[in-house]
Amino acid sequence: MRLRGKKMTEEMLQRLSGLMVDEAESYKGRWAEWFGNNRPIHVELGMGKGKFISEMSVLHPDVNFIGVDMYDTLIHRAVEKAFVVWKEAHGTAPMNIALVRMNIEHIEKVFADSEVERIYLNFSDPWPKKRHAKRRLTHPEFLKKYLQLLNERGEIHFKTDSRQLFEFSLNAFSDMGLRMRNISLDLHAEGPAANNVMTEYESKFFDQGVNIHRCEVIVGERALQEHVHKLREILRKY
Amino acid sequence: MRLRGKKMTEEMLQRLSGLMVDEAESYKGRWAEWFGNNRPIHVELGMGKGKFISEMSVLHPDVNFIGVDMYDTLIHRAVEKAFVVWKEAHGTAPMNIALVRMNIEHIEKVFADSEVERIYLNFSDPWPKKRHAKRRLTHPEFLKKYLQLLNERGEIHFKTDSRQLFEFSLNAFSDMGLRMRNISLDLHAEGPAANNVMTEYESKFFDQGVNIHRCEVIVGERALQEHVHKLREILRKY
Ligand SMILES: C[S@@+](CC[C@H](N)C(=O)[O-])C[C@H]1O[C@@H](n2cnc3c(N)ncnc32)[C@H](O)[C@@H]1O
Ligand SMILES: C[S@@+](CC[C@H](N)C(=O)[O-])C[C@H]1O[C@@H](n2cnc3c(N)ncnc32)[C@H](O)[C@@H]1O
Repeated sequence: MRLRGKKMTEEMLQRLSGLMVDEAESYKGRWAEWFGNNRPIHVELGMGKGKFISEMSVLHPDVNFIGVDMYDTLIHRAVEKAFVVWKEAHGTAPMNIALVRMNIEHIEKVFADSEVERIYLNFSDPWPKKRHAKRRLTHPEFLKKYLQLLNERGEIHFKTDSRQLFEFSLNAFSDMGLRMRNISLDLHAEGPAANNVMTEYESKFFDQGVNIHRCEVIVGERALQEHVHKLREILRKY
Repeated sequence: MRLRGKKMTEEMLQRLSGLMVDEAESYKGRWAEWFGNNRPIHVELGMGKGKFISEMSVLHPDVNFIGVDMYDTLIHRAVEKAFVVWKEAHGTAPMNIALVRMNIEHIEKVFADSEVERIYLNFSDPWPKKRHAKRRLTHPEFLKKYLQLLNERGEIHFKTDSRQLFEFSLNAFSDMGLRMRNISLDLHAEGPAANNVMTEYESKFFDQGVNIHRCEVIVGERALQEHVHKLREILRKY
Protein backbone atom coordinates (compact mmCIF):
# COMPACT_ATOMS: atom_id res chain seq x y z
CA MET A 1 0.00 0.00 0.00
CA ARG A 2 2.70 2.45 -0.92
CA LEU A 3 1.81 5.93 -2.10
CA ARG A 4 4.50 6.30 -4.71
CA GLY A 5 2.97 6.88 -8.11
CA LYS A 6 -0.39 7.65 -6.58
CA LYS A 7 -1.78 11.12 -6.75
CA MET A 8 -1.41 13.00 -3.50
CA THR A 9 -3.64 15.72 -2.28
CA GLU A 10 -2.18 19.11 -1.45
CA GLU A 11 -2.68 18.47 2.23
CA MET A 12 -0.95 15.10 2.10
CA LEU A 13 2.02 16.57 0.31
CA GLN A 14 2.30 19.28 2.89
CA ARG A 15 2.14 16.87 5.83
CA LEU A 16 4.58 14.54 4.13
CA SER A 17 7.14 17.19 3.53
CA GLY A 18 6.46 18.41 7.05
CA LEU A 19 8.03 15.23 8.43
CA MET A 20 11.31 15.89 6.68
CA VAL A 21 13.54 18.29 8.51
CA ASP A 22 15.69 20.17 6.06
CA GLU A 23 18.05 22.17 8.19
CA ALA A 24 18.27 19.76 11.05
CA GLU A 25 21.36 21.42 12.50
CA SER A 26 19.32 24.50 13.26
CA TYR A 27 17.21 22.43 15.65
CA LYS A 28 20.14 21.28 17.75
CA GLY A 29 19.05 21.91 21.34
CA ARG A 30 15.60 22.96 20.10
CA TRP A 31 13.90 19.70 19.09
CA ALA A 32 11.25 20.23 21.74
CA GLU A 33 10.29 23.36 19.79
CA TRP A 34 10.11 21.43 16.53
CA PHE A 35 7.74 18.89 18.10
CA GLY A 36 5.91 21.50 20.13
CA ASN A 37 6.28 19.52 23.35
CA ASN A 38 8.83 18.17 25.82
CA ARG A 39 8.35 14.45 25.33
CA PRO A 40 11.41 12.21 25.37
CA ILE A 41 13.18 11.85 22.04
CA HIS A 42 14.03 8.44 20.60
CA VAL A 43 16.29 8.42 17.57
CA GLU A 44 16.66 5.56 15.12
CA LEU A 45 20.03 5.67 13.40
CA GLY A 46 19.86 4.18 9.91
CA MET A 47 16.10 3.77 9.83
CA GLY A 48 15.97 2.55 6.21
CA LYS A 49 12.44 2.42 4.83
CA GLY A 50 10.85 3.42 8.13
CA LYS A 51 8.66 0.49 9.17
CA PHE A 52 10.05 0.35 12.70
CA ILE A 53 9.90 4.04 13.47
CA SER A 54 6.43 4.39 11.95
CA GLU A 55 4.96 1.55 13.96
CA MET A 56 6.78 2.63 17.11
CA SER A 57 5.43 6.16 16.79
CA VAL A 58 1.88 4.80 16.73
CA LEU A 59 2.52 2.53 19.71
CA HIS A 60 4.21 5.24 21.79
CA PRO A 61 2.37 8.52 21.39
CA ASP A 62 4.23 9.93 24.42
CA VAL A 63 7.55 9.72 22.66
CA ASN A 64 8.93 11.84 19.83
CA PHE A 65 10.71 9.78 17.20
CA ILE A 66 13.44 10.98 14.89
CA GLY A 67 14.57 8.74 12.06
CA VAL A 68 17.99 9.29 10.54
CA ASP A 69 19.34 7.95 7.27
CA MET A 70 21.70 9.27 4.66
CA TYR A 71 19.72 8.67 1.49
CA ASP A 72 16.97 10.90 0.16
CA THR A 73 15.15 7.95 -1.38
CA LEU A 74 14.98 6.23 2.01
CA ILE A 75 13.76 9.39 3.71
CA HIS A 76 10.99 9.59 1.10
CA ARG A 77 10.09 5.95 1.57
CA ALA A 78 9.99 6.45 5.33
CA VAL A 79 7.75 9.50 4.99
CA GLU A 80 5.31 7.49 2.90
CA LYS A 81 5.48 4.58 5.31
CA ALA A 82 4.77 6.79 8.31
CA PHE A 83 1.83 8.28 6.48
CA VAL A 84 0.39 4.89 5.56
CA VAL A 85 0.86 3.40 9.04
CA TRP A 86 -0.79 6.40 10.71
CA LYS A 87 -3.60 6.46 8.18
CA GLU A 88 -4.37 2.82 8.99
CA ALA A 89 -4.04 3.25 12.74
CA HIS A 90 -5.69 6.61 13.34
CA GLY A 91 -6.81 7.98 9.99
CA THR A 92 -4.59 10.97 10.60
CA ALA A 93 -1.19 12.20 9.57
CA PRO A 94 1.79 11.23 11.75
CA MET A 95 2.04 13.33 14.89
CA ASN A 96 5.35 12.47 16.51
CA ILE A 97 7.89 11.70 13.78
CA ALA A 98 10.66 13.71 12.22
CA LEU A 99 12.98 12.40 9.53
CA VAL A 100 16.47 13.68 9.02
CA ARG A 101 18.84 13.01 6.15
CA MET A 102 22.39 13.13 7.39
CA ASN A 103 25.51 11.12 7.92
CA ILE A 104 25.49 9.73 11.46
CA GLU A 105 29.16 10.65 11.71
CA HIS A 106 28.02 14.23 12.28
CA ILE A 107 25.29 13.41 14.75
CA GLU A 108 26.68 15.82 17.34
CA LYS A 109 25.80 18.68 15.01
CA VAL A 110 22.11 17.83 15.20
CA PHE A 111 21.59 16.99 18.88
CA ALA A 112 22.70 18.86 21.95
CA ASP A 113 24.09 17.16 25.05
CA SER A 114 21.41 15.13 26.84
CA GLU A 115 18.78 15.97 24.22
CA VAL A 116 18.07 12.31 23.39
CA GLU A 117 16.67 9.60 25.65
CA ARG A 118 17.08 6.55 23.50
CA ILE A 119 18.97 5.47 20.41
CA TYR A 120 17.82 2.56 18.29
CA LEU A 121 20.34 0.78 16.13
CA ASN A 122 18.56 -1.76 13.97
CA PHE A 123 20.50 -4.01 11.62
CA SER A 124 23.29 -1.55 11.16
CA ASP A 125 25.69 -2.35 8.34
CA PRO A 126 28.11 -4.97 9.74
CA TRP A 127 31.26 -3.78 7.91
CA PRO A 128 32.89 -7.18 8.35
CA LYS A 129 36.38 -6.19 7.20
CA LYS A 130 38.70 -5.15 10.01
CA ARG A 131 39.90 -2.08 8.18
CA HIS A 132 36.28 -0.83 8.05
CA ALA A 133 35.70 -1.31 11.79
CA LYS A 134 35.49 2.44 12.33
CA ARG A 135 32.37 2.61 10.17
CA ARG A 136 30.44 0.25 12.45
CA LEU A 137 27.81 2.28 14.28
CA THR A 138 28.80 0.63 17.57
CA HIS A 139 32.46 1.54 17.21
CA PRO A 140 33.77 3.31 20.34
CA GLU A 141 34.14 6.51 18.32
CA PHE A 142 30.39 6.50 17.60
CA LEU A 143 29.58 5.36 21.13
CA LYS A 144 31.45 8.34 22.55
CA LYS A 145 29.19 10.63 20.54
CA TYR A 146 26.04 8.80 21.62
CA LEU A 147 27.04 9.07 25.29
CA GLN A 148 27.22 12.80 24.83
CA LEU A 149 23.73 13.09 23.35
CA LEU A 150 21.95 10.74 25.72
CA ASN A 151 20.32 12.00 28.89
CA GLU A 152 20.24 10.54 32.39
CA ARG A 153 17.66 7.95 31.35
CA GLY A 154 19.59 7.22 28.19
CA GLU A 155 19.64 3.77 26.61
CA ILE A 156 20.80 2.24 23.36
CA HIS A 157 18.68 -0.58 21.93
CA PHE A 158 20.54 -2.66 19.40
CA LYS A 159 19.40 -5.47 17.09
CA THR A 160 21.36 -7.28 14.43
CA ASP A 161 21.48 -10.49 12.47
CA SER A 162 25.27 -10.30 12.28
CA ARG A 163 27.02 -12.43 14.87
CA GLN A 164 30.30 -10.66 14.12
CA LEU A 165 28.81 -7.20 14.60
CA PHE A 166 27.07 -8.31 17.76
CA GLU A 167 30.27 -9.76 19.17
CA PHE A 168 32.15 -6.59 18.27
CA SER A 169 29.44 -4.47 19.84
CA LEU A 170 29.22 -6.42 23.10
CA ASN A 171 32.95 -5.93 23.51
CA ALA A 172 32.73 -2.26 22.61
CA PHE A 173 29.93 -1.69 25.15
CA SER A 174 31.78 -3.66 27.84
CA ASP A 175 35.09 -1.99 27.18
CA MET A 176 33.46 1.44 27.46
CA GLY A 177 32.18 0.37 30.87
CA LEU A 178 28.53 0.37 29.76
CA ARG A 179 26.07 -1.95 31.43
CA MET A 180 24.00 -4.24 29.22
CA ARG A 181 20.57 -5.71 29.82
CA ASN A 182 18.20 -8.16 28.18
CA ILE A 183 20.88 -9.67 26.00
CA SER A 184 19.40 -12.11 23.52
CA LEU A 185 21.32 -14.35 21.12
CA ASP A 186 18.16 -15.62 19.45
CA LEU A 187 15.42 -13.05 19.86
CA HIS A 188 12.71 -15.06 18.16
CA ALA A 189 13.68 -18.44 19.63
CA GLU A 190 10.12 -19.06 20.79
CA GLY A 191 8.29 -17.37 17.91
CA PRO A 192 8.10 -13.63 17.27
CA ALA A 193 9.37 -11.90 20.40
CA ALA A 194 6.72 -10.13 22.49
CA ASN A 195 6.66 -6.31 22.49
CA ASN A 196 9.06 -6.26 19.58
CA VAL A 197 8.43 -4.23 16.45
CA MET A 198 10.16 -5.80 13.48
CA THR A 199 12.13 -3.72 11.01
CA GLU A 200 12.15 -4.42 7.27
CA TYR A 201 15.42 -6.35 7.53
CA GLU A 202 14.18 -8.18 10.58
CA SER A 203 10.97 -9.50 8.93
CA LYS A 204 13.03 -10.79 6.05
CA PHE A 205 15.50 -12.52 8.38
CA PHE A 206 12.71 -13.85 10.55
CA ASP A 207 11.08 -15.48 7.51
CA GLN A 208 14.41 -17.04 6.59
CA GLY A 209 14.91 -18.35 10.12
CA VAL A 210 18.03 -16.24 10.58
CA ASN A 211 19.04 -15.65 14.19
CA ILE A 212 18.53 -12.17 15.61
CA HIS A 213 20.75 -10.80 18.38
CA ARG A 214 19.57 -7.99 20.61
CA CYS A 215 20.62 -6.07 23.68
CA GLU A 216 19.94 -2.90 25.56
CA VAL A 217 22.73 -0.69 26.82
CA ILE A 218 22.13 1.39 29.90
CA VAL A 219 23.90 4.68 29.52
CA GLY A 220 22.27 7.23 31.77
CA GLU A 221 22.90 7.31 35.51
CA ARG A 222 19.20 7.31 36.30
CA ALA A 223 18.44 4.41 33.95
CA LEU A 224 21.24 2.48 35.65
CA GLN A 225 19.86 3.20 39.11
CA GLU A 226 16.41 2.04 38.08
CA HIS A 227 17.90 -1.15 36.67
CA VAL A 228 19.89 -1.84 39.83
CA HIS A 229 16.81 -1.16 41.94
CA LYS A 230 14.77 -3.70 39.97
CA LEU A 231 17.53 -6.28 40.31
CA ARG A 232 17.78 -5.77 44.05
CA GLU A 233 14.10 -6.63 44.27
CA ILE A 234 14.63 -9.77 42.24
CA LEU A 235 17.68 -10.78 44.27
CA ARG A 236 15.84 -10.18 47.54
CA LYS A 237 13.74 -13.24 46.73
CA TYR A 238 16.69 -15.60 47.07
CA MET B 1 47.69 -43.29 26.73
CA ARG B 2 45.65 -43.76 29.86
CA LEU B 3 47.12 -45.48 32.86
CA ARG B 4 44.03 -47.38 33.90
CA GLY B 5 44.66 -51.10 33.88
CA LYS B 6 48.39 -50.55 33.71
CA LYS B 7 50.54 -51.50 36.62
CA MET B 8 51.62 -48.53 38.67
CA THR B 9 54.75 -48.26 40.70
CA GLU B 10 54.56 -47.48 44.40
CA GLU B 11 55.92 -44.01 43.76
CA MET B 12 53.39 -43.31 41.04
CA LEU B 13 50.53 -44.37 43.25
CA GLN B 14 51.75 -42.15 46.02
CA ARG B 15 52.10 -39.12 43.75
CA LEU B 16 48.74 -39.82 42.19
CA SER B 17 46.93 -39.99 45.44
CA GLY B 18 48.90 -36.95 46.52
CA LEU B 19 46.99 -34.86 43.99
CA MET B 20 43.66 -35.71 45.55
CA VAL B 21 42.82 -33.60 48.54
CA ASP B 22 40.64 -35.56 50.91
CA GLU B 23 39.65 -33.11 53.56
CA ALA B 24 39.61 -30.03 51.39
CA GLU B 25 37.67 -27.98 53.92
CA SER B 26 40.61 -28.15 56.29
CA TYR B 27 42.68 -26.20 53.74
CA LYS B 28 40.31 -23.27 53.55
CA GLY B 29 42.51 -20.21 53.92
CA ARG B 30 45.60 -22.46 53.86
CA TRP B 31 45.95 -23.53 50.23
CA ALA B 32 49.29 -21.79 50.01
CA GLU B 33 50.47 -24.25 52.67
CA TRP B 34 49.15 -27.20 50.70
CA PHE B 35 51.09 -26.08 47.62
CA GLY B 36 54.08 -24.93 49.62
CA ASN B 37 54.14 -21.53 47.90
CA ASN B 38 52.15 -18.32 47.44
CA ARG B 39 51.42 -18.52 43.74
CA PRO B 40 48.01 -17.41 42.49
CA ILE B 41 45.32 -20.06 42.60
CA HIS B 42 43.18 -20.85 39.55
CA VAL B 43 40.22 -23.11 40.14
CA GLU B 44 38.38 -25.06 37.46
CA LEU B 45 34.82 -25.79 38.52
CA GLY B 46 33.53 -29.00 36.97
CA MET B 47 36.84 -30.07 35.46
CA GLY B 48 35.56 -33.43 34.19
CA LYS B 49 38.34 -35.70 32.97
CA GLY B 50 41.05 -33.11 33.55
CA LYS B 51 42.55 -32.40 30.12
CA PHE B 52 42.28 -28.62 30.47
CA ILE B 53 43.66 -28.34 33.97
CA SER B 54 46.49 -30.76 33.25
CA GLU B 55 47.64 -28.93 30.14
CA MET B 56 47.20 -25.53 31.79
CA SER B 57 49.31 -26.61 34.74
CA VAL B 58 52.16 -27.48 32.40
CA LEU B 59 51.83 -24.20 30.49
CA HIS B 60 51.64 -22.05 33.62
CA PRO B 61 54.10 -23.29 36.21
CA ASP B 62 53.69 -20.06 38.16
CA VAL B 63 50.07 -20.79 38.92
CA ASN B 64 48.57 -23.34 41.29
CA PHE B 65 45.60 -25.15 39.79
CA ILE B 66 42.76 -26.73 41.68
CA GLY B 67 40.27 -28.89 39.82
CA VAL B 68 36.85 -29.47 41.31
CA ASP B 69 34.28 -32.07 40.36
CA MET B 70 31.71 -34.05 42.25
CA TYR B 71 32.43 -37.58 41.01
CA ASP B 72 35.18 -39.85 42.30
CA THR B 73 35.58 -41.49 38.92
CA LEU B 74 36.25 -38.12 37.29
CA ILE B 75 38.73 -37.17 39.99
CA HIS B 76 40.55 -40.44 39.30
CA ARG B 77 40.51 -39.84 35.56
CA ALA B 78 41.84 -36.33 36.10
CA VAL B 79 44.63 -37.59 38.36
CA GLU B 80 45.71 -40.02 35.65
CA LYS B 81 45.45 -37.38 32.99
CA ALA B 82 47.60 -34.95 34.96
CA PHE B 83 50.17 -37.65 35.46
CA VAL B 84 50.27 -38.56 31.77
CA VAL B 85 50.47 -34.96 30.58
CA TRP B 86 53.28 -34.12 33.01
CA LYS B 87 55.15 -37.33 32.14
CA GLU B 88 55.09 -36.36 28.47
CA ALA B 89 56.00 -32.74 29.07
CA HIS B 90 58.61 -32.98 31.79
CA GLY B 91 59.04 -36.64 32.69
CA THR B 92 58.01 -35.77 36.22
CA ALA B 93 54.91 -35.95 38.40
CA PRO B 94 52.56 -32.95 38.39
CA MET B 95 53.83 -30.11 40.55
CA ASN B 96 51.04 -27.55 40.75
CA ILE B 97 47.70 -29.39 40.72
CA ALA B 98 45.27 -30.35 43.40
CA LEU B 99 41.99 -32.14 42.77
CA VAL B 100 39.00 -31.82 45.02
CA ARG B 101 35.80 -33.85 45.03
CA MET B 102 32.95 -31.69 46.21
CA ASN B 103 29.69 -30.10 45.22
CA ILE B 104 30.36 -26.58 43.98
CA GLU B 105 27.32 -25.43 45.94
CA HIS B 106 29.53 -25.59 49.02
CA ILE B 107 32.53 -23.88 47.50
CA GLU B 108 32.68 -21.29 50.25
CA LYS B 109 33.59 -24.06 52.69
CA VAL B 110 36.80 -24.80 50.78
CA PHE B 111 38.12 -21.34 49.91
CA ALA B 112 38.51 -18.29 52.09
CA ASP B 113 37.67 -14.77 50.94
CA SER B 114 40.10 -13.58 48.27
CA GLU B 115 41.98 -16.89 48.23
CA VAL B 116 41.36 -17.49 44.51
CA GLU B 117 42.58 -15.42 41.56
CA ARG B 118 40.72 -17.03 38.71
CA ILE B 119 37.78 -19.35 38.18
CA TYR B 120 37.42 -21.39 35.02
CA LEU B 121 33.98 -22.56 34.01
CA ASN B 122 34.28 -24.85 31.00
CA PHE B 123 31.19 -26.32 29.38
CA SER B 124 29.17 -26.26 32.54
CA ASP B 125 25.93 -28.19 32.41
CA PRO B 126 23.39 -25.92 30.66
CA TRP B 127 20.32 -26.96 32.67
CA PRO B 128 18.01 -25.71 29.92
CA LYS B 129 14.77 -25.94 31.88
CA LYS B 130 13.76 -22.73 33.62
CA ARG B 131 12.98 -24.49 36.86
CA HIS B 132 16.59 -25.73 36.99
CA ALA B 133 18.08 -22.27 36.45
CA LYS B 134 19.46 -22.21 39.98
CA ARG B 135 21.73 -25.14 39.17
CA ARG B 136 23.51 -23.25 36.40
CA LEU B 137 27.01 -22.46 37.60
CA THR B 138 26.62 -18.85 36.40
CA HIS B 139 23.40 -18.29 38.33
CA PRO B 140 23.61 -15.13 40.48
CA GLU B 141 23.56 -17.29 43.60
CA PHE B 142 26.78 -19.00 42.46
CA LEU B 143 28.26 -15.73 41.22
CA LYS B 144 27.78 -14.19 44.64
CA LYS B 145 29.89 -16.98 46.12
CA TYR B 146 32.58 -16.61 43.46
CA LEU B 147 32.81 -12.86 44.10
CA GLN B 148 33.55 -13.64 47.72
CA LEU B 149 36.39 -16.05 46.92
CA LEU B 150 38.07 -14.02 44.20
CA ASN B 151 40.84 -11.57 45.01
CA GLU B 152 41.54 -8.09 43.66
CA ARG B 153 42.89 -9.52 40.41
CA GLY B 154 39.99 -11.93 40.20
CA GLU B 155 38.54 -13.05 36.88
CA ILE B 156 36.09 -15.69 35.70
CA HIS B 157 36.83 -17.33 32.35
CA PHE B 158 33.82 -19.01 30.85
CA LYS B 159 33.40 -21.24 27.78
CA THR B 160 30.32 -23.05 26.57
CA ASP B 161 28.75 -24.54 23.49
CA SER B 162 25.28 -23.70 24.79
CA ARG B 163 23.86 -20.51 23.33
CA GLN B 164 21.13 -20.54 25.97
CA LEU B 165 23.58 -20.85 28.84
CA PHE B 166 25.81 -18.17 27.35
CA GLU B 167 22.89 -15.79 26.93
CA PHE B 168 21.77 -16.48 30.49
CA SER B 169 25.30 -15.95 31.76
CA LEU B 170 25.92 -12.68 29.90
CA ASN B 171 22.76 -11.33 31.47
CA ALA B 172 23.71 -12.63 34.90
CA PHE B 173 27.17 -11.03 34.68
CA SER B 174 25.73 -7.75 33.40
CA ASP B 175 22.97 -7.65 35.96
CA MET B 176 25.48 -8.20 38.75
CA GLY B 177 27.37 -5.18 37.44
CA LEU B 178 30.36 -7.23 36.33
CA ARG B 179 32.49 -6.06 33.44
CA MET B 180 33.10 -8.50 30.58
CA ARG B 181 36.01 -8.72 28.20
CA ASN B 182 37.03 -10.68 25.12
CA ILE B 183 33.51 -11.87 24.42
CA SER B 184 33.48 -14.38 21.59
CA LEU B 185 30.39 -15.90 19.96
CA ASP B 186 32.44 -18.23 17.78
CA LEU B 187 35.77 -18.87 19.44
CA HIS B 188 37.20 -21.02 16.68
CA ALA B 189 35.81 -18.99 13.76
CA GLU B 190 39.26 -18.81 12.16
CA GLY B 191 40.53 -22.24 13.16
CA PRO B 192 41.55 -23.29 16.67
CA ALA B 193 41.79 -20.13 18.77
CA ALA B 194 45.30 -19.06 19.72
CA ASN B 195 46.42 -19.50 23.34
CA ASN B 196 43.38 -21.61 24.04
CA VAL B 197 43.61 -25.00 25.71
CA MET B 198 40.71 -27.19 24.66
CA THR B 199 38.76 -29.23 27.17
CA GLU B 200 37.45 -32.72 26.42
CA TYR B 201 34.01 -31.36 25.55
CA GLU B 202 35.52 -28.59 23.50
CA SER B 203 37.61 -30.91 21.27
CA LYS B 204 34.53 -32.98 20.57
CA PHE B 205 32.47 -29.88 19.70
CA PHE B 206 35.29 -28.45 17.65
CA ASP B 207 35.45 -31.62 15.54
CA GLN B 208 31.70 -31.42 15.00
CA GLY B 209 31.92 -27.76 14.00
CA VAL B 210 29.77 -26.68 16.95
CA ASN B 211 30.07 -23.01 17.89
CA ILE B 212 31.92 -22.17 21.09
CA HIS B 213 31.09 -19.06 23.12
CA ARG B 214 33.58 -17.55 25.51
CA CYS B 215 34.05 -14.54 27.71
CA GLU B 216 36.11 -13.26 30.59
CA VAL B 217 34.54 -11.53 33.54
CA ILE B 218 36.56 -8.98 35.43
CA VAL B 219 35.74 -9.21 39.08
CA GLY B 220 38.60 -7.79 41.09
CA GLU B 221 39.14 -4.05 41.43
CA ARG B 222 42.76 -4.30 40.37
CA ALA B 223 41.97 -6.44 37.33
CA LEU B 224 39.37 -3.85 36.34
CA GLN B 225 41.83 -0.98 36.71
CA GLU B 226 44.39 -2.78 34.56
CA HIS B 227 41.73 -3.39 31.92
CA VAL B 228 40.64 0.24 31.90
CA HIS B 229 44.25 1.36 31.70
CA LYS B 230 44.86 -0.81 28.63
CA LEU B 231 41.72 0.53 26.98
CA ARG B 232 42.73 4.13 27.63
CA GLU B 233 45.93 3.42 25.75
CA ILE B 234 44.00 1.96 22.85
CA LEU B 235 41.51 4.83 22.81
CA ARG B 236 44.30 7.40 22.92
CA LYS B 237 45.16 6.38 19.36
CA TYR B 238 41.91 7.73 17.99
C1 LIG C 1 21.15 -2.51 6.72
S1 LIG C 1 20.14 -1.10 6.66
C2 LIG C 1 18.94 -1.38 7.93
C3 LIG C 1 17.69 -0.57 7.74
C4 LIG C 1 16.63 -0.71 8.86
N1 LIG C 1 17.15 -0.24 10.14
C5 LIG C 1 16.11 -2.11 8.99
O1 LIG C 1 16.44 -2.78 9.99
O2 LIG C 1 15.35 -2.60 8.12
C6 LIG C 1 21.20 0.12 7.32
C7 LIG C 1 20.72 1.54 7.07
O3 LIG C 1 21.60 2.43 7.72
C8 LIG C 1 21.88 3.53 6.89
N2 LIG C 1 23.20 4.05 7.25
C9 LIG C 1 24.33 3.34 7.33
N3 LIG C 1 25.37 4.11 7.69
C10 LIG C 1 24.87 5.36 7.84
C11 LIG C 1 25.44 6.61 8.20
N4 LIG C 1 26.75 6.72 8.48
N5 LIG C 1 24.63 7.69 8.26
C12 LIG C 1 23.31 7.57 8.00
N6 LIG C 1 22.72 6.42 7.66
C13 LIG C 1 23.49 5.33 7.57
C14 LIG C 1 21.80 2.97 5.47
O4 LIG C 1 21.52 3.95 4.53
C15 LIG C 1 20.68 1.94 5.61
O5 LIG C 1 19.43 2.49 5.33
C1 LIG D 1 29.57 -30.99 30.89
S1 LIG D 1 30.87 -31.48 31.93
C2 LIG D 1 32.28 -30.56 31.35
C3 LIG D 1 33.58 -31.18 31.75
C4 LIG D 1 34.84 -30.39 31.35
N1 LIG D 1 34.86 -29.08 31.99
C5 LIG D 1 34.96 -30.25 29.86
O1 LIG D 1 34.77 -29.13 29.36
O2 LIG D 1 35.27 -31.24 29.15
C6 LIG D 1 30.41 -30.70 33.44
C7 LIG D 1 31.18 -31.20 34.65
O3 LIG D 1 30.82 -30.44 35.78
C8 LIG D 1 30.63 -31.30 36.89
N2 LIG D 1 29.65 -30.63 37.78
C9 LIG D 1 28.44 -30.16 37.42
N3 LIG D 1 27.81 -29.62 38.48
C10 LIG D 1 28.66 -29.74 39.53
C11 LIG D 1 28.58 -29.36 40.91
N4 LIG D 1 27.48 -28.76 41.40
N5 LIG D 1 29.64 -29.65 41.70
C12 LIG D 1 30.73 -30.26 41.20
N6 LIG D 1 30.87 -30.62 39.91
C13 LIG D 1 29.83 -30.37 39.08
C14 LIG D 1 30.11 -32.57 36.30
O4 LIG D 1 30.37 -33.68 37.14
C15 LIG D 1 30.89 -32.64 34.98
O5 LIG D 1 32.11 -33.32 35.14
